[in-house]
Amino acid sequence: MSAPSSGEAIDPTTLTVGVLGGTGNQGKGLALRWAAAGIRVIVGSRAAERAENSAQEYRDATGVDHIIGGHNAHCATEADVVLAAVPWESHAETLTGLREELKGKILIDCVNPIGFDKKGPYPLPVEEGSAAQQAEQLLPETRVTAAFHNVSAVLLSDMSQPQVDCDVLVLGDDREATDVVRALADAIPGVRGVYGGRLRNAYQVECLTANLIAINRRYKVHAGIKITDLD
Amino acid sequence: MSAPSSGEAIDPTTLTVGVLGGTGNQGKGLALRWAAAGIRVIVGSRAAERAENSAQEYRDATGVDHIIGGHNAHCATEADVVLAAVPWESHAETLTGLREELKGKILIDCVNPIGFDKKGPYPLPVEEGSAAQQAEQLLPETRVTAAFHNVSAVLLSDMSQPQVDCDVLVLGDDREATDVVRALADAIPGVRGVYGGRLRNAYQVECLTANLIAINRRYKVHAGIKITDLD
Repeated sequence: MSAPSSGEAIDPTTLTVGVLGGTGNQGKGLALRWAAAGIRVIVGSRAAERAENSAQEYRDATGVDHIIGGHNAHCATEADVVLAAVPWESHAETLTGLREELKGKILIDCVNPIGFDKKGPYPLPVEEGSAAQQAEQLLPETRVTAAFHNVSAVLLSDMSQPQVDCDVLVLGDDREATDVVRALADAIPGVRGVYGGRLRNAYQVECLTANLIAINRRYKVHAGIKITDLD
Repeated sequence: MSAPSSGEAIDPTTLTVGVLGGTGNQGKGLALRWAAAGIRVIVGSRAAERAENSAQEYRDATGVDHIIGGHNAHCATEADVVLAAVPWESHAETLTGLREELKGKILIDCVNPIGFDKKGPYPLPVEEGSAAQQAEQLLPETRVTAAFHNVSAVLLSDMSQPQVDCDVLVLGDDREATDVVRALADAIPGVRGVYGGRLRNAYQVECLTANLIAINRRYKVHAGIKITDLD
């Protein structure tokens, strides 16, 4: 289906969401939560067999059958909305290889350009400004948004927890697209999708994950963020 | 006084805090809240008279007399801990001019390197990595921390509100210094100081204010952040 126009109520269960890098931690957590919320999910991977193995694991974990696996290209072709949850190192290459498949679709970029050394996490410079802006440059005919950077993969993947209490900042210059992505955030119990600015403000949201990792290490938690004064 | 060592209870009311740029919005809000919490405050400005005028206004607003005003150099000399709340445009120049006065002191940098155009706020590139890292390079003998970027000046300055509910991320490589700054955050009713990582992770916290401004515009609020899973 095509994305609804702004102002219409958005029913995320009418969407099929593809998860590129769906065998990784962040992709897994979101695939599980979306599937449990009644959304069809296609787990994508560079290797179709790995994707199908993960999809089987996620079907077992959620008890639903609307999670299938496939090659990234299949995932991008069949989905209405596509999440890029690949490592930063393979971000540009993966997206470049899917330019045709992603034409006209909503892409959600959740990639964090951060590095690690013995002192912990730190932001990596990105020539295009941010991972999301790199996606925008590589995919001029795709509706690029950025979201789900700061939500804990550990908490998402722990299906014994009925909800994940945090906000998801959704960035993008296409109002309809950010409304769809906010609805996909709201579909996860406990999560609230909050418009967080234009795509040119994505870098600091992507890299804030480094601060959350520092907080996790200091306080032994799985930190996320909430926006105050919004209730 | 010298900063207490890590582990000792920190009583912020034993400190004198200088606020460089204390006549601006963020400096005003923090000066008011700290003074109301029993902390001695010196409002600094490039013009001593302007600083004293603001100090008089803040004394009237809080009903306490331990807020005085003076030239930035006087402010930096007399204070134990110094907040840099100057515009990004004058950040480097102001700090360079106070190198001697700031030796050995804890500096709290709350400056946001963001610009504005007709599309709203956006992050400005900083050669040193962040405003805080610029301060660190300009002031090699000062204990530089970064904090108070994401707390609303409007809410801080509205003394009819008994508290400001948000977290303040405190960044720095000097554990004692970040503990002192966290205590200064905790001194404001409703605010919680949270260690937020090393100084090299300051840029994204500084620029997250651009996202909060975008949120303020969309939702007509005075947004701040809270860290989840920390309670």
